Amino acid sequence: MIKKVAIIGGGVIGGGWAARVLLNGLDVYVYDSDPNAEQTLLEVIDNARFSLPMLYESKLPNEGKIKFCESVAEAVVDADWIQESVPERLNVKHDVYDEIQTFCKTSAIIASSTSGFKPSELQENSKAPEKIIVCHPFNPVYLLPLIEVVGSDKTSARDIKKAMDVLKKLGFFPLHVRKEIDAHLADRFLEAVWREALWLINDDIATTSEIDNAIRYGFGLRWAQMGLFETYRIAGGKAGMQHFLSQFGPCLQWPWTKLMDVPELTDELVKKIASQSDSQSGDKSIRELERTRDKNLVAILRSLKQQNFAAGNLISNHEEMISEKKTLKNKMIVSVERVIPVDWTDYNGHMNEGRYGQVFSDAADGFLSSVGVDSVYIDSGNSYFTVENHIKYLNETLAGEHIYVDTSVLLVDGKKLKLFHTMRRKTDKIELATCEQFLLHVDLNTRKSSEPVGEVASKLQEIFK
Amino acid sequence: MIKKVAIIGGGVIGGGWAARVLLNGLDVYVYDSDPNAEQTLLEVIDNARFSLPMLYESKLPNEGKIKFCESVAEAVVDADWIQESVPERLNVKHDVYDEIQTFCKTSAIIASSTSGFKPSELQENSKAPEKIIVCHPFNPVYLLPLIEVVGSDKTSARDIKKAMDVLKKLGFFPLHVRKEIDAHLADRFLEAVWREALWLINDDIATTSEIDNAIRYGFGLRWAQMGLFETYRIAGGKAGMQHFLSQFGPCLQWPWTKLMDVPELTDELVKKIASQSDSQSGDKSIRELERTRDKNLVAILRSLKQQNFAAGNLISNHEEMISEKKTLKNKMIVSVERVIPVDWTDYNGHMNEGRYGQVFSDAADGFLSSVGVDSVYIDSGNSYFTVENHIKYLNETLAGEHIYVDTSVLLVDGKKLKLFHTMRRKTDKIELATCEQFLLHVDLNTRKSSEPVGEVASKLQEIFK
Repeated sequence: MIKKVAIIGGGVIGGGWAARVLLNGLDVYVYDSDPNAEQTLLEVIDNARFSLPMLYESKLPNEGKIKFCESVAEAVVDADWIQESVPERLNVKHDVYDEIQTFCKTSAIIASSTSGFKPSELQENSKAPEKIIVCHPFNPVYLLPLIEVVGSDKTSARDIKKAMDVLKKLGFFPLHVRKEIDAHLADRFLEAVWREALWLINDDIATTSEIDNAIRYGFGLRWAQMGLFETYRIAGGKAGMQHFLSQFGPCLQWPWTKLMDVPELTDELVKKIASQSDSQSGDKSIRELERTRDKNLVAILRSLKQQNFAAGNLISNHEEMISEKKTLKNKMIVSVERVIPVDWTDYNGHMNEGRYGQVFSDAADGFLSSVGVDSVYIDSGNSYFTVENHIKYLNETLAGEHIYVDTSVLLVDGKKLKLFHTMRRKTDKIELATCEQFLLHVDLNTRKSSEPVGEVASKLQEIFK
Repeated sequence: MIKKVAIIGGGVIGGGWAARVLLNGLDVYVYDSDPNAEQTLLEVIDNARFSLPMLYESKLPNEGKIKFCESVAEAVVDADWIQESVPERLNVKHDVYDEIQTFCKTSAIIASSTSGFKPSELQENSKAPEKIIVCHPFNPVYLLPLIEVVGSDKTSARDIKKAMDVLKKLGFFPLHVRKEIDAHLADRFLEAVWREALWLINDDIATTSEIDNAIRYGFGLRWAQMGLFETYRIAGGKAGMQHFLSQFGPCLQWPWTKLMDVPELTDELVKKIASQSDSQSGDKSIRELERTRDKNLVAILRSLKQQNFAAGNLISNHEEMISEKKTLKNKMIVSVERVIPVDWTDYNGHMNEGRYGQVFSDAADGFLSSVGVDSVYIDSGNSYFTVENHIKYLNETLAGEHIYVDTSVLLVDGKKLKLFHTMRRKTDKIELATCEQFLLHVDLNTRKSSEPVGEVASKLQEIFK
């Protein structure tokens, strides 16, 4: 795995990269020619610190270090990965690559956040063109998983693979775009929708707010989980995709879109859009909108995680990579350590009482996995079910708080198991709640209680003796 | 409110309408010339029965009745709302309207599910053109809220308003498209993306699966909550929308999309897409894909509901419309009645123990609201916090099960309140769990315990005496 990452060009995109890397435990060296960049970047990292840890049921690695550098040279020397997010002007990017490659290690990957340029264009006149690839992220970079990875003829398959591996370890979904093309894949779709939206506003058919509603109450909900083709496959029904396509054929000839044409961004059109956007969202600051967006994204991503689907499945896999193995120490175990996510609070503004039950359920899982009740054991038809919980709520818990649970064993007696959990806040170790939990070992086939088997039984005996 | 709905044209769209109407307690009369339509329609309703009730924390109204009719006449006579979802051929639709208007009430609204035709086209040669409007839904109609409502010059503002009101009561988000235009709003975007996707496959740039991933791991997640413009407003940052637009201006001239051109759907292209789609999703039946899609949509919609945003906010408002007021009877109250949603289960395949705590938290809320602890009381700085829960888990609970909770009062003593909840399965009244719950009245400003005030105090005294 890489150790040191250089961020060339701060701002919202560079800051998003910095945040994702930092919160995954790596050190970050930032260079931006704009003296105000540090402020923007720290705001982005602040947003990420609030939201990214909420995606996981375990704690993230300890944060890496961040250093703001005085020059490109200072940032890139020794870096294993250099992420370039400077403005979208080819000559600017070429100059930056020249400076980077004068000082960086020959093995370092230089990844560009460009949304428009092809890697072969970026590589023109380079000292080592084969090390420059496109890794195009989506805003907010610390929450959205997609990275479009694009190489040119000069790029080695080995470097593409290396880049994909690094990105996966950071929790991204790297999508290898196998042929270079202007704007890669996703932005071509965004551009198509954007042009059509501009026409609809230009022609006074709809306002910015109506267009947003046409998206988020309809196909936007579909696209957060399946994309275009799987959705249409379902719509086609049992007759199949081929039938669906032949039905759709004639419609393609209809004059549905204005996309053949590009609307001119006159001053008048720009003002119209800006003023509609103001009346739609002008009462909220960008910072407030960012927080709202991020809370929604956390909630949606967590809902997909619970369904183990798409981006949610990705987070589970990443969680497995970063989770530390839980071990017993003096018959005690730290069975849970995590951040309280935004979807756990209720109208009283604090964590709902039901979610304490979920934390203690996870605490039981954490303890049980340390004595061998893991997916293999469960697949073999054995598990523990909780039959009784006695929870005392001692202090309020808020979204964003870092908590942990100590678990000890009160009783092991055949199929009976009693645990005692104490949930504490990390910062001041104050007790937030306790739970006395009575579990029974269960045969998952008969759904009736049964004795634990094999190593699980002996490990439990050993702890309780 | 309307009482009787006629569905002309079954299939996936007509079936989706039927399901939404039926599950909101209205009677449905269906006519479709295809003798196989009944089967398809019942399958759609079956999907809806599984997923739609999961969106709500309270039970839906009792289901209406469904009748399959032998003729258009039989279906539409007495109907207040007639939903037409026949194939997208104008002459077919005209013939159907002619038959409908021969038999229906003059006050009935005739709403078309058309995705392509303008209302003025539908109205040509009609006996009463002003009663025909477009109400264009999105698949699955029983879960996605968006309906595009479009009238022509002949349509009265009164009928548009009436249609919007009816749709809101069914839990939809009616979006009034103020000017008629081919394909309304959303499908113009879908068409733009679809054309570009066809080119990418035609030119072997990407496969169906890669395109789906480019959508659902990136901008699809953004569009499920905010749309295009609010998302870009945030991306523009503090410099504002006008600045963002002037930056975006030059890009519009770039050759990013092929949308000027329509790809020919040759046999070869159709086969390529169908075969890529098969290798992407061919191992799952359409029914399985539908269930997966619906579970994901339920989970996403519920996550937005918890954040009280966009489609989630809509569901909360609809829930308030359909919830029955809870009242005490012999000092007991049915404090919760609901269906267990898919996002409440864990790896053991049953409802997680934490979610029982949530049900009992809702049960306390149900009881408390009946004695006057409502949003007004809470806004005045008063609430109850749970300090201790003793839960006994008696039987497993599964997603989709209809449950209810009986709540009685064990103790009222100043700031102290003790409740006893019994959660039962609706079908056989079997006990699933019990909870003894100890609550303290709290001053929300000091976050310390305090005596209940006003009517709440006296009502509680009266119950416990």
